[in-house]
Amino acid sequence: MRIANLAGRLVLLTSGGAVDVERASGQRFPADPHAVYARWDEFTAWAAGLPPATAEAFEEADLRAPSPTPAQVFGVGLNYRDHAAEAGLGLPDAPAVFTKFPSCLTGPTGEVALTGSTVDWEVELVAVIGRAARNVPAEHGWDHIAGLTAGQDLSDRAVQLAGPAPQFSLGKSAPGFGPTGPWLVTPGRVRRPRQPGAELRGQRRVRTEEPHPRAHLLRARARRAAVGDPAAAAR
Amino acid sequence: MRIANLAGRLVLLTSGGAVDVERASGQRFPADPHAVYARWDEFTAWAAGLPPATAEAFEEADLRAPSPTPAQVFGVGLNYRDHAAEAGLGLPDAPAVFTKFPSCLTGPTGEVALTGSTVDWEVELVAVIGRAARNVPAEHGWDHIAGLTAGQDLSDRAVQLAGPAPQFSLGKSAPGFGPTGPWLVTPGRVRRPRQPGAELRGQRRVRTEEPHPRAHLLRARARRAAVGDPAAAAR
Repeated sequence: MRIANLAGRLVLLTSGGAVDVERASGQRFPADPHAVYARWDEFTAWAAGLPPATAEAFEEADLRAPSPTPAQVFGVGLNYRDHAAEAGLGLPDAPAVFTKFPSCLTGPTGEVALTGSTVDWEVELVAVIGRAARNVPAEHGWDHIAGLTAGQDLSDRAVQLAGPAPQFSLGKSAPGFGPTGPWLVTPGRVRRPRQPGAELRGQRRVRTEEPHPRAHLLRARARRAAVGDPAAAAR
Repeated sequence: MRIANLAGRLVLLTSGGAVDVERASGQRFPADPHAVYARWDEFTAWAAGLPPATAEAFEEADLRAPSPTPAQVFGVGLNYRDHAAEAGLGLPDAPAVFTKFPSCLTGPTGEVALTGSTVDWEVELVAVIGRAARNVPAEHGWDHIAGLTAGQDLSDRAVQLAGPAPQFSLGKSAPGFGPTGPWLVTPGRVRRPRQPGAELRGQRRVRTEEPHPRAHLLRARARRAAVGDPAAAAR
């Protein structure tokens, strides 16, 4: 199943186009794309039984962030060997967890105003949480994921690395520094990128051939992941 | 003016007790304590003109977080000289900004389960944003603050300082690690702690005699502060 945020309205994507969820459900589900994650099991059950609905053509430029206002965003840094080495840092016992402040989130298209000459970017795999999670064993992590989407993690390296105790979050959170989309794909449709050799192909290839042994999307030590939260694998 | 979250309902506090906002406003404002910040100007104008209403006695143990589900939480670290020295760190050009993930927020009373033997805590001044802000000059920062409350910043130092690029946020975000309250006080009622010599007295005294010259609650470089966001001055 694929869902998207089409100009602020939740839609199901089919081969024929977009199905407006509020209208197709007779107002059972609201148009707000954020609201669906709190009722994820109910929503997916409804969507699975949906009779053929009239899908409409749409412009990809009208797609916005699939999870536009998450309660929390977890960025997972230093999460594989090559990346830690590239950053000139040792391999940690556990990945570094930071946030991208939600106000940086945006859709998959548009222009981003750079904040200076040290802005870098990386393609990311973004997991949106569909079932509240706390202290989840790694082997059950997928049970809490509504779906996956692509993201970019823009970072102003000068801000991110400034000072005697650099905190990544602010330098990664300027307006537009968190593009996501174009849609959310439920896990059943994705070859789960757990095994070595899985790759995410984007504008820049990110190799995950050497995943950190503890770089699970939902770490056992992770704090409660509220519904609608993206957990991004990021530097 | 003082407002509070009384067992999940927004109340005004008067000398006589608590006034339920939804009932006193004839449902003009909802009971949800979070919702008021998006209509802060309208709400304060209404509250200022409120005729004497029947206030009811309440138990302080029923008070919860004044801003229970903010879109973003900005923690400002290394924000005065003594504190940077205590942490064994130099004085940065700008304070380090981290987050406390919103799921750690709780009210002013209750028990907190410690995550280990290295949990520390500090009393904090918490400012809740009532008017969206981005790139606000320091001298206009107060215009965006709905009110102030007290907070505690619990930190698992082992988690906070782990690894080659320590990120503070996760170690500061275990369940219950963000007590706030008991109520929100609007700026007009507070001696503004801008000038050297101002102190916040709590279970532990935090001296602000040497404020960092750039440790404004809302920094000029700060990213957009969404309505309802607490900005806490914290290590």
